Amino acid sequence: MNKGNQTGTTLFSGGAGRFVPVDHAAVHFTGGFWKSWQDTVRDITIPTQYMRLEEEKFLEVLDFRSPPGPLARPIQPSGLSMQHFFDSDFGKWIEAASYMLKYRRDPEIEARIDDIVARLGDGQMPDGYLNSWFIRREPEKRWTNLRDLHEMYSMGHLLEGAVAYFEATGKRAFLDIMLKAVDHIIETFGTEDGKLRGYDAHAEVELALMKLYRLTGEERHRQLASYFVDERGQMPSYFDEEARRRGEDPDDYVFHTYAYSQAHKPVREQEEVEGHAVRATYLFSAMADLAFETADPTLWTALEKLFAHMTAKLLYVTGGIGSSGDNEGFTRDFDLPNETAYAETCAAIALGFWVHRMAQIDLDSCYTDILELVAYNGALSGIARDGEHYFYENVLESHGQHRRWKWHYCPCCPTNIARFIASLGGYVYTSKPDALAVHLYAESEAKVMLGERAVTIRQDTAYPWDGDICLTLEPEEAMDFALCLRIPGWSDEARLTVNGEAVDLPAVMVKGYATLQRHWQRGDVIRLALPMPVERLHAHPDVSDAFGRVAIKRGPVVYCMEETDIGFPPQRLRLPQDASLEAHFDESLLGGATILKGHAMAADGAGWKDGLYARQKPAMIETAITAIPYHLWANREPGGMLVWLLED
Amino acid sequence: MNKGNQTGTTLFSGGAGRFVPVDHAAVHFTGGFWKSWQDTVRDITIPTQYMRLEEEKFLEVLDFRSPPGPLARPIQPSGLSMQHFFDSDFGKWIEAASYMLKYRRDPEIEARIDDIVARLGDGQMPDGYLNSWFIRREPEKRWTNLRDLHEMYSMGHLLEGAVAYFEATGKRAFLDIMLKAVDHIIETFGTEDGKLRGYDAHAEVELALMKLYRLTGEERHRQLASYFVDERGQMPSYFDEEARRRGEDPDDYVFHTYAYSQAHKPVREQEEVEGHAVRATYLFSAMADLAFETADPTLWTALEKLFAHMTAKLLYVTGGIGSSGDNEGFTRDFDLPNETAYAETCAAIALGFWVHRMAQIDLDSCYTDILELVAYNGALSGIARDGEHYFYENVLESHGQHRRWKWHYCPCCPTNIARFIASLGGYVYTSKPDALAVHLYAESEAKVMLGERAVTIRQDTAYPWDGDICLTLEPEEAMDFALCLRIPGWSDEARLTVNGEAVDLPAVMVKGYATLQRHWQRGDVIRLALPMPVERLHAHPDVSDAFGRVAIKRGPVVYCMEETDIGFPPQRLRLPQDASLEAHFDESLLGGATILKGHAMAADGAGWKDGLYARQKPAMIETAITAIPYHLWANREPGGMLVWLLED
Repeated sequence: MNKGNQTGTTLFSGGAGRFVPVDHAAVHFTGGFWKSWQDTVRDITIPTQYMRLEEEKFLEVLDFRSPPGPLARPIQPSGLSMQHFFDSDFGKWIEAASYMLKYRRDPEIEARIDDIVARLGDGQMPDGYLNSWFIRREPEKRWTNLRDLHEMYSMGHLLEGAVAYFEATGKRAFLDIMLKAVDHIIETFGTEDGKLRGYDAHAEVELALMKLYRLTGEERHRQLASYFVDERGQMPSYFDEEARRRGEDPDDYVFHTYAYSQAHKPVREQEEVEGHAVRATYLFSAMADLAFETADPTLWTALEKLFAHMTAKLLYVTGGIGSSGDNEGFTRDFDLPNETAYAETCAAIALGFWVHRMAQIDLDSCYTDILELVAYNGALSGIARDGEHYFYENVLESHGQHRRWKWHYCPCCPTNIARFIASLGGYVYTSKPDALAVHLYAESEAKVMLGERAVTIRQDTAYPWDGDICLTLEPEEAMDFALCLRIPGWSDEARLTVNGEAVDLPAVMVKGYATLQRHWQRGDVIRLALPMPVERLHAHPDVSDAFGRVAIKRGPVVYCMEETDIGFPPQRLRLPQDASLEAHFDESLLGGATILKGHAMAADGAGWKDGLYARQKPAMIETAITAIPYHLWANREPGGMLVWLLED
Repeated sequence: MNKGNQTGTTLFSGGAGRFVPVDHAAVHFTGGFWKSWQDTVRDITIPTQYMRLEEEKFLEVLDFRSPPGPLARPIQPSGLSMQHFFDSDFGKWIEAASYMLKYRRDPEIEARIDDIVARLGDGQMPDGYLNSWFIRREPEKRWTNLRDLHEMYSMGHLLEGAVAYFEATGKRAFLDIMLKAVDHIIETFGTEDGKLRGYDAHAEVELALMKLYRLTGEERHRQLASYFVDERGQMPSYFDEEARRRGEDPDDYVFHTYAYSQAHKPVREQEEVEGHAVRATYLFSAMADLAFETADPTLWTALEKLFAHMTAKLLYVTGGIGSSGDNEGFTRDFDLPNETAYAETCAAIALGFWVHRMAQIDLDSCYTDILELVAYNGALSGIARDGEHYFYENVLESHGQHRRWKWHYCPCCPTNIARFIASLGGYVYTSKPDALAVHLYAESEAKVMLGERAVTIRQDTAYPWDGDICLTLEPEEAMDFALCLRIPGWSDEARLTVNGEAVDLPAVMVKGYATLQRHWQRGDVIRLALPMPVERLHAHPDVSDAFGRVAIKRGPVVYCMEETDIGFPPQRLRLPQDASLEAHFDESLLGGATILKGHAMAADGAGWKDGLYARQKPAMIETAITAIPYHLWANREPGGMLVWLLED
């Protein structure tokens, strides 16, 4: 993680452009792990999420021609109340669907999206304002409470959906609606006289505006994002001012501090990650996009500090972040409880968004190692293997009380994990005219542009179950470029050959990437071997809930033990220091996964006859154990689960 | 804990009356531990609690002649909002003060109480209804919501205060007010036509009515308590009925289940302890009072089952109960988290109330061992050594975020711990004409009635710091009776002599009590030696948060480690299995306490350079450690605290 003395200035002044992601649809997962998940998302997740939106009457609320219902907060048929930011759920669902449409058009899905778009168009106010909740139910509250009401957050997600749908289909209707909405925002907010000097407490529109900017190339779209980022946390706070306008005491704020929204001080002065985890990582993603586009070293410096703080003090071993449900976010350093972990699915995904952007500015595996970590663990655990049940909180320990749900009071995570998996191809490579960086390993074929020149790259691998990767390059013509292969931080014994010749890895390593600069020819074959021993990880001793315990990891995959495999709660286990765990591929486990088998000692719960407390220790008996990938937990019988195992 | 095949029937049919507690003021703590605490309560706690009631404008709200303020829920000067059941705080404060007045009258305190009583008298409605909140602010809500509004809970605490004040001073005004209030309740609630068939969801008035009954001897007071206990949990639920009367959907209940109030089924059918911990233990206390007075074996059978469940599955090693803040109560079996423990001070105290009553029916140390446990640990931890700061939640682990407070949103615990300590003399002995039972050991002198005959009993001891107790009996005349001495469950090596002659303990043990039946003379001396080795306790292996860990106990006192003593967070410690801990009396520690000293291994936090997760274990270094009594924690510098130490 040592970044040396590299500064923003040197980064931004250096060389021939920066790494940009490949279009996700240029990467085809041709088999194995991610193909299986993408198939599930396309065939199950996207259609069933639409069914939920129907069943739960979300679509009905979009029917602007009927009179609004009598309730300020309608109750969904499932008994859950509807949140006022439900436009965001449409937005993310359309975005997820669009990512799959870019691979393969689907008239049925498109008809549904077109219908939603038509409804939104019907509802949009003549001045461009668009938010179903407020138009239909509380028009008098429009733009009165940016602190709590998520109006621009909702618009931001609609905007991301509109950009993705346009890019997938070429249809402009949704994009035009959202361009009009963005114009309305530009007319309403800013530093100019007569405008409101506000910003949404839940960052999101900033990130969406950067996507729009990259589509339109219109400077004013980027400038609006800059304005929101620059204005955030300026004092006196706009949130105070608008609270007073509402006749409220600004101090009477349920979350007590604007750090909840990273709005307690200007973003460039923030050195520690605080507050709501999704707000934070959406904001940091937008800041990284702006740093990329504007080469603003002050933003980059802030991001580096924030990243260092988060990864040194606030990150679960699974890649989850935001340990507390009270603020859906961060607490004190090293406070990473297991059973009460919040570790919201959306937050892990947004961490993926952020580090992906960081690596575009600074190609360093400290970022992309975390991308890999969340992809296989803390984000993926948010969706069931059946593709239609979810976790909001991703605990690291359970006594069986945590079960996946079909729908939720705040259904933000399902569509988020859907869009993340659907667009995962976009995270595999970044490129610039003279380099191609490989961040993720997966059975796949892709056509990547290096500037104007195309390179086809095929990966043959059973990753993440096996660490042997064979990459075959097919440049459209032989050419010079640097192929940068991420050597995962978990791998100590990587071996690399090019066309059968061994590469001296230490000699070519640059910030965690094996950097192979050469004249590449059609059919060049690179073999990367990443041995995957079963590893035991220890946490910093101030992570109290992991002290004396070990987490099991193999390659990028974090493991856990489930009661359904071992027959008793895994909390009763002690893992001897010398106990070996052997990897086996189990085809029958939820579509196939590598599991770990071995022996450990377990407390004899049935044999304990001493009441609740006793002088003698519980008797320990040897027992066979099985560990499964953490992301696959809670897909079978209910029961206990544990990531951090007590070590003997 | 094996109660054999003893049943309620045999218990109630047996012998010459049952054990009754001595009047608390008959027991004088003449020095040592409890004298020090009682002095603090008299000199600091009771006066400062009155100051808080003044400062926080509680007394102002009692000024019925001024118009009510504009707010439905007034904000106190400390910024906390006032709860609608604040009458209960007056009631408990008057009760606590009265217990000390019974030792020594105090015109200043009495003038304050008389003033409150006069105000309450002014406010009482002509029909006897008395509840300051509802009379002053929401008269239309009177008796409309027994599920949520605590009206009878508040009246119950006023009634307990009135009984105690009458007993201490002979002044009738408060008692007369409350007798009129009770008459109003009798006229309003019951099974007769025209009455409401309700009961308060928060048990309390039942227990208060039993105190009144024992004062007045009026059967209708006992019958009202019986009615409330019998009616509780009958279906269809009164709470459903009254919710519908309010135009609400009964299913729209924030706590989801009436088990929250032990009202999900009739009390005699309840076999497991569920819901809000204080509600539960107040209810069970009233049930035990009724079982005592009515010899109803069905109540007793239920109580035995509930007690067995609580002690086998739901009790912290400190005596705390109710592990979750969500319902202020019980969750699943063995769910006893440390850092998020709720373990409300009031709940530990109420557990003391309950087991004290159980032992009046069945003299068994399984009950009184828990009385001792809560008195020295989980209840006493609720008050600071300065007598004017408090804990509501009594966690077993902290990273320094838990600090004692001066006042609280829900200030129920301060007056509860005050009344418990002030009346602790009443827990030391119970007696019947042919027996005297000693439950607690403490430097003290008492005059106890065995029927008509008085026995003076002196205890010379430095308990709980030392286990040698010398009891001297001074019966007014030589007489036969059984002296029953509790041999604590934690003591394996007790030794007993009577006038210097060793007693064969196993031969005289009956349900945990050494039962010495003889002709006692003036000056008989009983010496009980209870050696107090430092003990390590292990929890049932299904208490996951204690698995692999040990709690340290010496005699009745549970120990903890505090960062302020060891210089780093105790969560970094591993206690070797063979590490010895030596007891030392430290006069300088908060008025004097026995501390434990020894050595353990600590993770080298400063030396860890590996980021958040690493393959290597943290280096361990030997370190000197100090443990202090748990009840004394959080009286010095802020920092980490831990009860359950990781054992190597």
